[in-house]
Amino acid sequence: MSFNKLANGKYDLVADWKALERIFISPENEATRKTLVKYMEQILFGLHDFLKANVGITEEASLMELSDWFKDSTINKNPTRKLADVIKGIIKDIAPHAVNVASPYFIGHMTSAIPFFMVHLHTIVAALNQNVVKLETSKIVSIFERQVLAKIHRLIFKFDKDFYNLHIQNPDSTLGSFVEDGTLANLTAMWVVRNTALKKKDNFDGVEKQGINAAYKAYNINRCVILVSQLAHYSLRKAGGVLGIGNENIIKIPMDHENKLDIIKLKEIIHSFDNQTKILAVIGIAGATETGSVDPLNEIAEICSKHNIHFHVDAAWGGPTLLSEKYNYKLSGIEKANSVTIDGHKQFYMPMSCGMVYFRDSKIMDSIAYHSAYVNRPGSVDLGIRSLVGSRAATSLVLGSALDIMGSRGYGLLINHGIDTAKEFANELKKRKLFQIATEPQLNIITYRIFPESLKQKWNESSHEQKKDINNTINDINITVQRLQREAGKSFVSRTTLYKENLSQVVLRSVIMNPMTDINIIIEVLNEQEELYKTNFDF
Amino acid sequence: MSFNKLANGKYDLVADWKALERIFISPENEATRKTLVKYMEQILFGLHDFLKANVGITEEASLMELSDWFKDSTINKNPTRKLADVIKGIIKDIAPHAVNVASPYFIGHMTSAIPFFMVHLHTIVAALNQNVVKLETSKIVSIFERQVLAKIHRLIFKFDKDFYNLHIQNPDSTLGSFVEDGTLANLTAMWVVRNTALKKKDNFDGVEKQGINAAYKAYNINRCVILVSQLAHYSLRKAGGVLGIGNENIIKIPMDHENKLDIIKLKEIIHSFDNQTKILAVIGIAGATETGSVDPLNEIAEICSKHNIHFHVDAAWGGPTLLSEKYNYKLSGIEKANSVTIDGHKQFYMPMSCGMVYFRDSKIMDSIAYHSAYVNRPGSVDLGIRSLVGSRAATSLVLGSALDIMGSRGYGLLINHGIDTAKEFANELKKRKLFQIATEPQLNIITYRIFPESLKQKWNESSHEQKKDINNTINDINITVQRLQREAGKSFVSRTTLYKENLSQVVLRSVIMNPMTDINIIIEVLNEQEELYKTNFDF
Repeated sequence: MSFNKLANGKYDLVADWKALERIFISPENEATRKTLVKYMEQILFGLHDFLKANVGITEEASLMELSDWFKDSTINKNPTRKLADVIKGIIKDIAPHAVNVASPYFIGHMTSAIPFFMVHLHTIVAALNQNVVKLETSKIVSIFERQVLAKIHRLIFKFDKDFYNLHIQNPDSTLGSFVEDGTLANLTAMWVVRNTALKKKDNFDGVEKQGINAAYKAYNINRCVILVSQLAHYSLRKAGGVLGIGNENIIKIPMDHENKLDIIKLKEIIHSFDNQTKILAVIGIAGATETGSVDPLNEIAEICSKHNIHFHVDAAWGGPTLLSEKYNYKLSGIEKANSVTIDGHKQFYMPMSCGMVYFRDSKIMDSIAYHSAYVNRPGSVDLGIRSLVGSRAATSLVLGSALDIMGSRGYGLLINHGIDTAKEFANELKKRKLFQIATEPQLNIITYRIFPESLKQKWNESSHEQKKDINNTINDINITVQRLQREAGKSFVSRTTLYKENLSQVVLRSVIMNPMTDINIIIEVLNEQEELYKTNFDF
Repeated sequence: MSFNKLANGKYDLVADWKALERIFISPENEATRKTLVKYMEQILFGLHDFLKANVGITEEASLMELSDWFKDSTINKNPTRKLADVIKGIIKDIAPHAVNVASPYFIGHMTSAIPFFMVHLHTIVAALNQNVVKLETSKIVSIFERQVLAKIHRLIFKFDKDFYNLHIQNPDSTLGSFVEDGTLANLTAMWVVRNTALKKKDNFDGVEKQGINAAYKAYNINRCVILVSQLAHYSLRKAGGVLGIGNENIIKIPMDHENKLDIIKLKEIIHSFDNQTKILAVIGIAGATETGSVDPLNEIAEICSKHNIHFHVDAAWGGPTLLSEKYNYKLSGIEKANSVTIDGHKQFYMPMSCGMVYFRDSKIMDSIAYHSAYVNRPGSVDLGIRSLVGSRAATSLVLGSALDIMGSRGYGLLINHGIDTAKEFANELKKRKLFQIATEPQLNIITYRIFPESLKQKWNESSHEQKKDINNTINDINITVQRLQREAGKSFVSRTTLYKENLSQVVLRSVIMNPMTDINIIIEVLNEQEELYKTNFDF
């Protein structure tokens, strides 16, 4: 922190009280201010200039090699680096081996470039350092957050002005909640659902207080289930595990030919349960992680309404599609949901990480309310009362400001670009003989695989057993090409496994969210894949 | 985002593709770069200059009034503000009504000033925007994080070099996990504990898969309990609720006269359960939220070891005391824990928010492992495999860098200052006739109350019924003085309720973590409280 110049010209870092005071007090002199601003400049552009110079994903260095750099488990007694050196170190040693998620050639995951201003907004959150768990450590920021929650709630559920006037700043109403990510948003939703279904009655004090075992006795059931699409995110199984209902009770409903939850099967399964089984929720996906497919939300809503089942939509990925006038019809039916998960760090283009969960009923989150003696007293405005998490950053400042800066039209342009480009991607694949589309893009995600002509012919003449063998060969090819392309360092698509025709099919997966990713880049990515195939497999 | 100058001299903001491209591409020309750096300067100093000019907590404006500013639930189609206006707005309209947690007079909560460099480090996290859920979106940053986890693990558990050489970069070992805050860290610990206690056996597939109901049958029990101090954080009750064991089964053990968990009572309670009850864990607190008290960790460890019970320490607050050579003895016994919660945004002085949980056994987190097809394949280095949360920011970059910049000595100075000043605080209270100390500071938290001389005399001559009345009067006084002081806007202490002598005693609570909070400031705070008392109650 502090440093004394040594005889050899180096500095000796020491931690003393004077140095401590200096780092806590707002710097008074111009020179110190300039230095601190210069550091910010290095962070803003030092990192970005590197990223520009290295369009690929990472430089060459094996995991093993990198691991050897970080094997020091001791905390040094004296300071070892100044801020300036930390920044230099991150630019020189970390950034080159981090993943350039901002590259337009990085189209394998749901992490992408973010607008420049997001970094500024993120910095504001730290500079104010409010804790939104309670009003006493956030005041106006809690009130601001309520407005952001209402804006997204309205985007989803489309209630009228009167509804929002009533609830937007009413401490007794909870329209939703910020939480670290989509996994915890889904967990929060299922927690609320479980507690609502197994609430207080007669001599039973509710599942939250008395636990699952007592609840099942009180309700005379032996099982709770949650019905989901086969493509549901694994966080839903995790929620089942965490909440004590067991992840085997997150039951996967078969898909139709468009990778959507099969409505007929859903009806059959709902009718198949005896009265010892309670259906807690049906979950529709709006933008499956692997394929971007959207479940038939209107039909699910109708069934849930008829059977009085909670309808949750996991729109962690697809939610912001609602901001596109061109494509918001794809999420039709989401407004009938009882709860919705949506992620800020995905298609709101916020920095990591920001999950959100919204509820149609402004009182349903009362089922998870907790109070403490030193904060969150009953009746208070404290946002921590109905929340999975406690202390929490004011991430809503980023989202609320971004909505102002972008407008729905700005976000709409990004959404449109992604979906339009994914369609062009599909057309390009159809022109090429080496590839086979696995799932057509419903939103901005496409899966496909390398499937050589020669094998396609064989395939048509084969028994299921023979197809298995061919499929294994195809899988090997795709695994290898994906790995080689990643290792080459210029482009990155991810891979996943889909179950089709009773086979585990390895597919390549692309997510188009970077506005700089256009069809020309996609052509380059596919050309490289063809090249890698030819070099390694064209026998 | 983009703007056209109108005839009236104002700007019309529009969202178009050109503007979009601009905000995603690293700015090429010097002028744009300068502008972006200027914005950072405004964020860094505009906010801090305000905070300096307003030592108090907030300016005058009622909640009702503030609420009226934020009642717009619509998302505008076109952009309404540029980044420059957002920053100006936050400095002019938000900051003055936010809470000045950085003021040395803000001594009511566990949120305080943070060193300047923390804002820079926080900005780096957003600028790199890695997602630590998987290696493919973080690479070197995941490896860096493993080193940070090992450093804190070693600080707590003090294993030897060989242990860390073996585990630090071994993908099959998990020393701990980052999570949003202490609440989720405690939840993670109890989740691991539940799954370990109710694991697979015979024909039972484990509680995570089959749920609580099946688990209780398989283990022939009807209840799981977790034993905690009366001062345990409410997140532990919440964990009991979320995990399906029921929050009534988080059982509070009475305290001794020093507000520590009473070891004799703990033994009695352990022996009182029949064999239908499984004790999942005993939890010791190292720095209770309300009083800062530390449970007798060595004694609890011994009992847990004897009965083979998991011993968890909630050191969310007190953990960094280990960095002080002068006071680390206060946490003696923590190294015998099976798991430990520790918060970065508390006494590591990081921005909101950063929770962590650590485990003695590097394999125990396998009990919560989840895999997915598109990420986190078995055997991979992906940190998301054993984690409550999915997508997650690389907060470890902040902590790891801060440890380098501060050294343990730098942190030690902060810890020592807090504890030493809390002792001076206690001495000052003892000099003043108006006050009564409720809990002596064991760390850097002190609770006390206004207790006028006249009532003290009455108290000694009173029956328990009469004491109740006097206590109510004292409570009213303390509630009022705390509120008036908060509203006056210069200083802030919090209040909480302690149960002593069979009475609910409202006490004032101070947390000394800001290095700028010295005894002179405390004297000012107490003088103001005396003044407020005299003006309003001296009858």
